[in-house]
Amino acid sequence: MVTIDLNCDMGESFGAYTIGDDEAMLELISTANIACGFHAGDPVVMRNTILAAKAKGVAIGAHPSFMDLYGFGRRRISGERPEDLEAQIIYQIAAMQGMASALSWPMTHVKTHGSLGNMAAVDPELAAVCVRAIKTVDPTLVFITLPYSETMKAAERAGLRVACEVYADRTYDDNGMLTSRQMEGSVIHDPQQSVDQTLSMIREGFIPTVGGSKLPVDAATICVHGDNPASVATARALRTALAAHGIAVAPFAKPVSD
Amino acid sequence: MVTIDLNCDMGESFGAYTIGDDEAMLELISTANIACGFHAGDPVVMRNTILAAKAKGVAIGAHPSFMDLYGFGRRRISGERPEDLEAQIIYQIAAMQGMASALSWPMTHVKTHGSLGNMAAVDPELAAVCVRAIKTVDPTLVFITLPYSETMKAAERAGLRVACEVYADRTYDDNGMLTSRQMEGSVIHDPQQSVDQTLSMIREGFIPTVGGSKLPVDAATICVHGDNPASVATARALRTALAAHGIAVAPFAKPVSD
Amino acid sequence: MVTIDLNCDMGESFGAYTIGDDEAMLELISTANIACGFHAGDPVVMRNTILAAKAKGVAIGAHPSFMDLYGFGRRRISGERPEDLEAQIIYQIAAMQGMASALSWPMTHVKTHGSLGNMAAVDPELAAVCVRAIKTVDPTLVFITLPYSETMKAAERAGLRVACEVYADRTYDDNGMLTSRQMEGSVIHDPQQSVDQTLSMIREGFIPTVGGSKLPVDAATICVHGDNPASVATARALRTALAAHGIAVAPFAKPVSD
Amino acid sequence: MVTIDLNCDMGESFGAYTIGDDEAMLELISTANIACGFHAGDPVVMRNTILAAKAKGVAIGAHPSFMDLYGFGRRRISGERPEDLEAQIIYQIAAMQGMASALSWPMTHVKTHGSLGNMAAVDPELAAVCVRAIKTVDPTLVFITLPYSETMKAAERAGLRVACEVYADRTYDDNGMLTSRQMEGSVIHDPQQSVDQTLSMIREGFIPTVGGSKLPVDAATICVHGDNPASVATARALRTALAAHGIAVAPFAKPVSD
Repeated sequence: MVTIDLNCDMGESFGAYTIGDDEAMLELISTANIACGFHAGDPVVMRNTILAAKAKGVAIGAHPSFMDLYGFGRRRISGERPEDLEAQIIYQIAAMQGMASALSWPMTHVKTHGSLGNMAAVDPELAAVCVRAIKTVDPTLVFITLPYSETMKAAERAGLRVACEVYADRTYDDNGMLTSRQMEGSVIHDPQQSVDQTLSMIREGFIPTVGGSKLPVDAATICVHGDNPASVATARALRTALAAHGIAVAPFAKPVSD
Repeated sequence: MVTIDLNCDMGESFGAYTIGDDEAMLELISTANIACGFHAGDPVVMRNTILAAKAKGVAIGAHPSFMDLYGFGRRRISGERPEDLEAQIIYQIAAMQGMASALSWPMTHVKTHGSLGNMAAVDPELAAVCVRAIKTVDPTLVFITLPYSETMKAAERAGLRVACEVYADRTYDDNGMLTSRQMEGSVIHDPQQSVDQTLSMIREGFIPTVGGSKLPVDAATICVHGDNPASVATARALRTALAAHGIAVAPFAKPVSD
Repeated sequence: MVTIDLNCDMGESFGAYTIGDDEAMLELISTANIACGFHAGDPVVMRNTILAAKAKGVAIGAHPSFMDLYGFGRRRISGERPEDLEAQIIYQIAAMQGMASALSWPMTHVKTHGSLGNMAAVDPELAAVCVRAIKTVDPTLVFITLPYSETMKAAERAGLRVACEVYADRTYDDNGMLTSRQMEGSVIHDPQQSVDQTLSMIREGFIPTVGGSKLPVDAATICVHGDNPASVATARALRTALAAHGIAVAPFAKPVSD
Repeated sequence: MVTIDLNCDMGESFGAYTIGDDEAMLELISTANIACGFHAGDPVVMRNTILAAKAKGVAIGAHPSFMDLYGFGRRRISGERPEDLEAQIIYQIAAMQGMASALSWPMTHVKTHGSLGNMAAVDPELAAVCVRAIKTVDPTLVFITLPYSETMKAAERAGLRVACEVYADRTYDDNGMLTSRQMEGSVIHDPQQSVDQTLSMIREGFIPTVGGSKLPVDAATICVHGDNPASVATARALRTALAAHGIAVAPFAKPVSD
């Protein structure tokens, strides 16, 4: 049977502040990327999210970012030495891994958050920083990366296992990059078009582009958003559509409880 | 040969801010308690401190605290649920342990910082929180605690190994507690009195008290301060005095590089 | 016509995080206490809240707290020198007053938040710190305080104008203090009992206590909560009940646009 | 008699962390730019710095920055809406102005810090944000800006008074910009060359450039650094050299105690 992973960012609440309906999303996804306390999340939120994922059998990973609670990791931050940014990413992955192990639900992967992810996808030096940080903590971790990104290339060069992530609701240009959100048609609102694109990527192994090309892709996971009110409904619809086409949802890397 | 450990808090710089002369202290001590980014320290400082300690063969441990950069962990903070405070301590120990392992200089122990330590020493519930947090991350870690403290009792009840910490330059009351800094004679300024007290605690196994009692103690480590200008000179004098009495300095728990 | 003020804490969102439905509450209240960026709020939230209050003619004030975003100002923090805490409160009031003036909607008052307020209400020294901070920034500001509190006494001693704040939905003990939330009957769930108590306090000028006493009170404002889902409905019901008894809602201190 | 202002950033300590020898610098300068708690500084440091400046008759101003304590305001941060950044700058200036007024030593000016200043100097939109923020708080404030910068142009367009700032120890290119620190000869180490350049800018009214040009400049203030060990000696030498050439040091905008 064909399977695909659904991954979602979560654990992004902080102190008295709540974002997203993590409990509901955990029913629908197979992999959770958990904030590590830098752009969002705190130790209590992390523990609760790890335990909730464990209870549902959802695989977990670290979701590191810039140190930017105010900007939720969405601000672009530059001017740090690469080795200093590497230390920040190592810290976050290490904290997450330590908590996950302590709670007997070992983490399987890493996915970078927000601007850190966007910037690393197109910057070979920053991509290499992320890859080195992951390998330093644990070279068996899987790195969720976008196809045709510098991050994926850096991971492959370094022998780090990647899980290629695709979007059901975003269009791609002929270089395999997501089209800009400023561009008309960047976000797919037609459910059928979204399902068609997903099936193409999962079953046939290529990304249809806005230029009419077909780019090969070895999709391992579909990104699902969790931070807006419609998130749960959208994820449920996607899951139902996948099931209707005989595609099951399962983590790309199966967690093994200690 | 008789040996004793000298431990010092370090890695308490943050971003552009520097506190203490860690390089100089690392020449004199055998165990370093490294701040974890909550009251002080940041990922870059942590990495640099771990590597500096490794280069000198100094054992390292996590130095968790309240989440209180502004107050340097010295403000007393209450009103949190015990399990939430436990998550914060787990996070800090996990982050430190992960970084230490990643840099091939595994940590050996935990020592609580500032108000967290002071409050836990006299509060059985808070002491139990600290002990649970350590055991959750790694039950083989050693917990540096004060003699006759609730922290030591909680650790012993839980089967967690402790390293009993004494002061060369502070007097003790008949309950084995440090006398209040408000009290005349609380801090020992006479070097000879300080050496005499230290020898009593290490060689003879008892704490001389201000009331004239002798309380049994199994001292494993002497606390050395690192955050003031005189710190290095004081530590050097103590080390010289110990050597003159045939006492060598060595970590209570020997780190083993991976 | 009899009038009373309804005050509510708001502007407690932060960055990507939202708390409360400030827009809806501003339709119902006459005075808004705006977070100043220490326990909640940020410059953007403050500006937006000031402008929204101005648009509705709602009076605004500073809502200072401990520097404690993680704990939302609810953690009890001690161990600072009084003059240092005073500087923190001055900073918050000054920032709020400056923004309010810049946006041509001058602030009228100050209300302390969370643990700072709770602790100052029973601690004469802390109460004096709050009063000195307000007077330092602007001695014409009104201080919202609880009846029979140390805060009210300190303000009156210092000649600072107070607005006495009462609760519609909480019972009082014979000393005029709110009964503990741990106590049965502390929160009034019966709408009629709540209205009766409110009318007693506003029209007749006394607080009915759980011991059967009647304590004199010169109530200037009723506290309305804004941070839970039922807040808007509760505030609307209170306002309707007040209107039914011929009591209009109006700010205790009328703001005057520059 | 010819006078010039010497300005220095200060009040950049935070909590337990100290940067710079502000007391010593206040003996040598005429204008202090005080950090507002975003990249450095805290309410206690601000109060102490204001009072110390007042005691020495040194003019004070706000030194706003990106919200970036970890990066000391040196990281480049982008991706915020201009109006949101404007609110952050308004907040900082308002907090500083309020504290200064409360302590009876009104502030005279604003100087942007670190990356915010560097980025605004070459970005017309960011420059306009800074100018609008200052005018919103108080249109009589003076804005310290670099000659030929977008910041100076934006201020002049908006009718905001500027104080043109020059460097004694940095060379300029033919566009009036500081030469890159990467470039050989960017920093002037020869004291005589530094004095010659200063006299040219102050007495003759032009900047000598590395290309041999002479660019007109109406210098109001010389920037003096305060955050490194040699700062005090360098500032003292400059002040002595100025005196030897009959140039006195005085603030460009005289503070008037309330």
